[in-house]
Amino acid sequence: MEDSKIKTILQAAKKRFAHYGLAKTAMNDIANDIGMSKASLYYYFKDKDQIFIAVVEQDMDEFVKVIEEVIERPSKASFKLKKYVSLKNSLLTRLINLAKVDKLNATDVFNPVYDDLKRTFNIKEKGLVSKILLSGIEQKEFIRFSVEQYTDLFLIVTGGLRTVALTAPDGLENQDKVNEQTTLFLDIFLKSIRQ
Amino acid sequence: MEDSKIKTILQAAKKRFAHYGLAKTAMNDIANDIGMSKASLYYYFKDKDQIFIAVVEQDMDEFVKVIEEVIERPSKASFKLKKYVSLKNSLLTRLINLAKVDKLNATDVFNPVYDDLKRTFNIKEKGLVSKILLSGIEQKEFIRFSVEQYTDLFLIVTGGLRTVALTAPDGLENQDKVNEQTTLFLDIFLKSIRQ
Repeated sequence: MEDSKIKTILQAAKKRFAHYGLAKTAMNDIANDIGMSKASLYYYFKDKDQIFIAVVEQDMDEFVKVIEEVIERPSKASFKLKKYVSLKNSLLTRLINLAKVDKLNATDVFNPVYDDLKRTFNIKEKGLVSKILLSGIEQKEFIRFSVEQYTDLFLIVTGGLRTVALTAPDGLENQDKVNEQTTLFLDIFLKSIRQ
Repeated sequence: MEDSKIKTILQAAKKRFAHYGLAKTAMNDIANDIGMSKASLYYYFKDKDQIFIAVVEQDMDEFVKVIEEVIERPSKASFKLKKYVSLKNSLLTRLINLAKVDKLNATDVFNPVYDDLKRTFNIKEKGLVSKILLSGIEQKEFIRFSVEQYTDLFLIVTGGLRTVALTAPDGLENQDKVNEQTTLFLDIFLKSIRQ
């Protein structure tokens, strides 16, 4: 019973936050959306930050679940690594609130809620990418190298290029160019660690 | 005579802009700094944007001159490429107005003066880096590859990492980590193009 209430709240909040963002969403809006009294809503969540955190944590769980499924397949580590980049793009098109946390624009940086969530997401991503790299080393597809260092470089470069593509001023043409650069980076990255 | 006046104006403006930025500098400030009437200053420059452009163009000339000197040396292209990154860091510590253009924070993005200068600087950087990569191909140190694509990737990744290092929140520790990542990137970049 309680679980289904929380589920309803999170579903409504997810849409609200995706459309209006954390700053422009009030507890009242969420309560109205599901015909719940404000008092009841406060019974489940202390404030809207707590709801936002729960929404983004759901997004992260989904992100990790989908990537873990790819990791468990018997394919090559190099394939999984490429897949990681394309899947991240498609997942974050759907998981809009997680995408907002991942991107962070100048004003959001000052909100510690975003900051904490971004840190958490970064740790989860590091876990997933290291797992892929380690499996490649274990299966002798890759040489031995510092998995931590390579994971950091992989995430900072592909994440940076993703942000550039999303904020590219000249529209699609520029976006294509950044995607090309991401592919090139993946190629040189893999070339440097392949046996 | 006229040349020396312009030199004096640019010297004073350079300091002003470096300290206070373009937005917080007035034509009056520059005129006062050099004991010139506002009317005389306007005789030489239409507005402060024009002075800023002239100051940053001087910075760019110096940047290009220093790098060209490195390019003309008989050392290896891979050495020159590494040198490019470290020299850019040290040059932009000194060429403060060019550094501001190179970095661009959220508010400056809306100023077309910055935008145009950044574009110009990017074209100059592309010219320098392509020259290094081409010389490496010609001297058979590197394999054949798309110089344009590799130049773009090199500049976007090293530039991106530079920005991350400069804005790293946890101070020096984080900066060291980014420098480490830059070194690692240079290594895998060079590994992928070496003969």
